[in-house]
Amino acid sequence: MRGPERRLLTFSAGAPHWPDEVLAAAAAELPGFRETGLAVPELGHRSPEWAALQEEIEGRFRRLAGVPADREVLLLPGGPTWQFALLPLNLRPPGMGADYVLTGHWARKAFDAARATGAARVAASGEAEGFTRVPAPATWDVDPAAAYLHVTTNNTVHGTWLREIPAGLPVPLVADATSDLLARRLPLERFAVVYAGAQKNLGPTGLTVVVARRDLLDRAPGGLPPILRWRDHAAARSRLNTPPTVLAWLLGKMLEWIEAEGGLDEMDRRTRERGRIVYEALEAHPDVYRLPAAREDRSWVNVVFRTRDEATDRAFLAAARARGLVGLEGHRVVGGLRASMYTGMPVEGARRLAALLHEFAEHPGG
Amino acid sequence: MRGPERRLLTFSAGAPHWPDEVLAAAAAELPGFRETGLAVPELGHRSPEWAALQEEIEGRFRRLAGVPADREVLLLPGGPTWQFALLPLNLRPPGMGADYVLTGHWARKAFDAARATGAARVAASGEAEGFTRVPAPATWDVDPAAAYLHVTTNNTVHGTWLREIPAGLPVPLVADATSDLLARRLPLERFAVVYAGAQKNLGPTGLTVVVARRDLLDRAPGGLPPILRWRDHAAARSRLNTPPTVLAWLLGKMLEWIEAEGGLDEMDRRTRERGRIVYEALEAHPDVYRLPAAREDRSWVNVVFRTRDEATDRAFLAAARARGLVGLEGHRVVGGLRASMYTGMPVEGARRLAALLHEFAEHPGG
Repeated sequence: MRGPERRLLTFSAGAPHWPDEVLAAAAAELPGFRETGLAVPELGHRSPEWAALQEEIEGRFRRLAGVPADREVLLLPGGPTWQFALLPLNLRPPGMGADYVLTGHWARKAFDAARATGAARVAASGEAEGFTRVPAPATWDVDPAAAYLHVTTNNTVHGTWLREIPAGLPVPLVADATSDLLARRLPLERFAVVYAGAQKNLGPTGLTVVVARRDLLDRAPGGLPPILRWRDHAAARSRLNTPPTVLAWLLGKMLEWIEAEGGLDEMDRRTRERGRIVYEALEAHPDVYRLPAAREDRSWVNVVFRTRDEATDRAFLAAARARGLVGLEGHRVVGGLRASMYTGMPVEGARRLAALLHEFAEHPGG
Repeated sequence: MRGPERRLLTFSAGAPHWPDEVLAAAAAELPGFRETGLAVPELGHRSPEWAALQEEIEGRFRRLAGVPADREVLLLPGGPTWQFALLPLNLRPPGMGADYVLTGHWARKAFDAARATGAARVAASGEAEGFTRVPAPATWDVDPAAAYLHVTTNNTVHGTWLREIPAGLPVPLVADATSDLLARRLPLERFAVVYAGAQKNLGPTGLTVVVARRDLLDRAPGGLPPILRWRDHAAARSRLNTPPTVLAWLLGKMLEWIEAEGGLDEMDRRTRERGRIVYEALEAHPDVYRLPAAREDRSWVNVVFRTRDEATDRAFLAAARARGLVGLEGHRVVGGLRASMYTGMPVEGARRLAALLHEFAEHPGG
């Protein structure tokens, strides 16, 4: 086992920092799940033990996220990019189009996947401004005949988020909330569908939670193999085929921890506190750090910044690593620096980063 | 941690028995991966540490399974049912059909998924005999114009397998080898594509290994979202999007163990030894146990049997559970009993089952 002296704090956008308590609990439980006499990966997905565990996980997720009763909750294998493809196949009937709000790299990927199999249209885009702003909902040009409108609630690459989730849209609102679901309070009743890769705020990579209004699932056209149909997964309670049991169990361990820590209220509070701490440190040194995202659209989950040049960015990364802080590289499409602080990041982690930001600002050369 | 006195031995077909050494190694490594200072689920899939680990896992799999050099190895999320759908989308060009050999429940599922999106045809079927026999390759009616011929190398539900893998077929041979890959020596050079859910012989549920001849990947038609394309996954080295890192790592732990135990030769030997031990015990009591599968097509991985009636089957399951042997229920579509013995099952487990079979035969009432 790793001694605490070597423990790094990761600010990576791709795989989150995990609370030590969750890791210890998972390591202890893996070889022997409760009183079953079986290891976690030995639990059969058709067994009563697994059915009970999955019920527990889904129930906890519903409570924590505030899922309305008329929504199905699906646990599906693969990251959210799989849902970029499955969403239009399931929710866009033949002959209809879908609207997309382009707010960044991942929103564009979702849009491109929808275009690969049918009609998709841009309802609003922040591309002209380099995705440094999120177009205000009032400016969205929504086609009332669209099958749905897709938004990305938080843009990990650009460090922006959709501050207010609009209500009263003329078409069902669908959201990729991979990077902010459970990190902040999202009004789930305003979304017809919300999906989120577990890999940021909910736990492991390779698992996606889909929350969908039950009445929409019948839209899926014929000619789709059952495994690609949300409706079939819902009818089979996410056990249409062998599910990724170990990943669902890890999701469950994270949810247990989130609940024990105080639930969504506390996660929302910590997200704002971490964001405040890091942004204040950055803004205290405007001569050293630049913040490309528009102030009012800033994400408090992914803080995107840079120094005056690439060499200084590299010096910052080296200084961070020397203090045990890693994963601060910006996304390859924009470069620069980025601090991703998902649910598992302690507030103390934000303080350590802020301390580094102040120190480094005194000697930016290293 | 579970004490050894409570440890059960699972013969379940769905989730395999795991060697205690693998579970202990995984539990120890999960919170701190090697010298990285990070937990396994914190490893970013774009990090050099992950790239090196994935390379190691793939390399070990190639060595162990004897993968020819011109094959791509893909690690994809989801169980093999996902590949039932993706296979025809990727390998059956528009206007072409695909041939399927129906040897059981899962072969039929693969066939149905192919029919959902295009032309598929039955080249041979064991259905008239209740899938108790595997049609001999010499009797297969293969359409030389088919895009491929699909077979299931081992039929978990019915306890049969394809004894000899045919060579020299007029079309590319594609196989679902979920339940026997690495449990017995399969000549991978005879298959254009082999895919296997990791959930039996390779480790965790929710991950599938696809081994595909590189030149076939260009067959995928346009209009397919990249995430559904094998070619795109191959080009991105299975990191087209965020992969299920924890599952790939668990696969790696199982492969390490398989290699340390003696590799494929030893796994093949153990499979035959376990099968021999259990079949001999069953055949020693023909008045008590019935073996529906044709002797020459019997699988040595999944042993399907039954007693004289359902009440006696239930008594057997209770006697087994009392001895710490679980998961012996037959598949719901055929009922009866089944002992699934994948790579992680010790030969001693087969001996314990054989001892029970003998004892129970003396007092079938319980």
